[in-house]
Amino acid sequence: MSVSLVGAGPGDPGLITARGLELIRSCDVLVYDRLVAPELVSEAPADALRISREPLGQERIKELLVSYGRAGLEVVRLKGGDPFVFGRGGEEALALADAGLPFEVVPGVSSLASVPASAGIPVTHRGLASAVTAVAAHDADLDYETLARIPGTLVFFMGLGKLPALTAGLLAAGKAPNTPAAVISRGTLPDQETVVAPLADLAAAADGLGAPALVVVGNVVTLSASLSPEEQKGPAERAPSALHRVA
Amino acid sequence: MSVSLVGAGPGDPGLITARGLELIRSCDVLVYDRLVAPELVSEAPADALRISREPLGQERIKELLVSYGRAGLEVVRLKGGDPFVFGRGGEEALALADAGLPFEVVPGVSSLASVPASAGIPVTHRGLASAVTAVAAHDADLDYETLARIPGTLVFFMGLGKLPALTAGLLAAGKAPNTPAAVISRGTLPDQETVVAPLADLAAAADGLGAPALVVVGNVVTLSASLSPEEQKGPAERAPSALHRVA
Repeated sequence: MSVSLVGAGPGDPGLITARGLELIRSCDVLVYDRLVAPELVSEAPADALRISREPLGQERIKELLVSYGRAGLEVVRLKGGDPFVFGRGGEEALALADAGLPFEVVPGVSSLASVPASAGIPVTHRGLASAVTAVAAHDADLDYETLARIPGTLVFFMGLGKLPALTAGLLAAGKAPNTPAAVISRGTLPDQETVVAPLADLAAAADGLGAPALVVVGNVVTLSASLSPEEQKGPAERAPSALHRVA
Repeated sequence: MSVSLVGAGPGDPGLITARGLELIRSCDVLVYDRLVAPELVSEAPADALRISREPLGQERIKELLVSYGRAGLEVVRLKGGDPFVFGRGGEEALALADAGLPFEVVPGVSSLASVPASAGIPVTHRGLASAVTAVAAHDADLDYETLARIPGTLVFFMGLGKLPALTAGLLAAGKAPNTPAAVISRGTLPDQETVVAPLADLAAAADGLGAPALVVVGNVVTLSASLSPEEQKGPAERAPSALHRVA
């Protein structure tokens, strides 16, 4: 296998998969997203070529993957979360397929459920939600009428910047103002911050939180009062990443 | 930390997280679901107590977790997929919280995106789907009218047994009969099988597939023609699980 699209998970380096970690540890070239944990980048062999994705455009990334893949190198494209959940992994996979290169997709732990979990919020829960919808909030044409009617949890990716418009859209479409809601900033990382508020107050309450952040709307948010790690112990006691202990 | 709720991932043992694997390797008690890979159960220490969840009711599971946790043992509750995505992890976490026991939730790779990925289907893709909704198909009160209107990918968990009702419900609610759809049986495992068909033909085409299976409905299914591993190489050449190589 020459090129692998690997999900790095939501932030905590211990949430990489065993398969993903193995591929990083044996790669020749590592192309990594800005939000990938530095601990994971460090797992690549000392002589591996490390390429930050940040300054490059999407077309250039595809060219690099194809070019290094054609050269017969073991290439790992390490992406935040899961490559196929708002990760543009499909576009990169298509470029590899078009070039006739073999590739492997190694799923990752998406932020979709893991970031809410880190705040004590299960995205599904018997009696509260038997469905969950994840939406790219930067989509210009959000169908608030439909979103407001979905009988389950709503999770918005990339929603922090347009939180006032997002909550206003849901409220105007009939979502109840007291619907439990939360914004989780830097979920699964040591400096994670969570704000819980009724939907109508969420934008004001979350003002000042940093990216990346996930927005969760639905009755499951009430469970955070019982299940969040902060309810159990101080944030300073959060379990450290386990990566070095697996190494 | 005395009790950990750990996601085992979708089936392939290499898709466990590094943190989850570490906890299994150091536990005193392992309580595991039927669908968890035997390779992961084998990773527990030789003298660990292994308890299959299969013959036990949900209440008994909670009692066991609380009881072993109170005894100060390191308990791992290993669940298929992600504990908080149709995994009833929230109920077990609440039992632990009610008992005043500290616990940790270690997210897993949910089937939600990883099983479609194993068939070459990204659940989101620019221009095709900027939202994905996951639904428990056994929910008696599925709101087909709303589901049919959601402008993104639909993923049904536990939908194999009621596939004719499911597809009929979506079609009656206005979903186009030629909407691309797929059923993926035993996704990420060596004996995975995938059926791709228009929504109107899906139930007949998938007849005879075995559980567990995931149902995917939406335009992203068309990408499987380019991205599925079978398009690249024979199924016999699928990459083996990497777990032993990380050990």
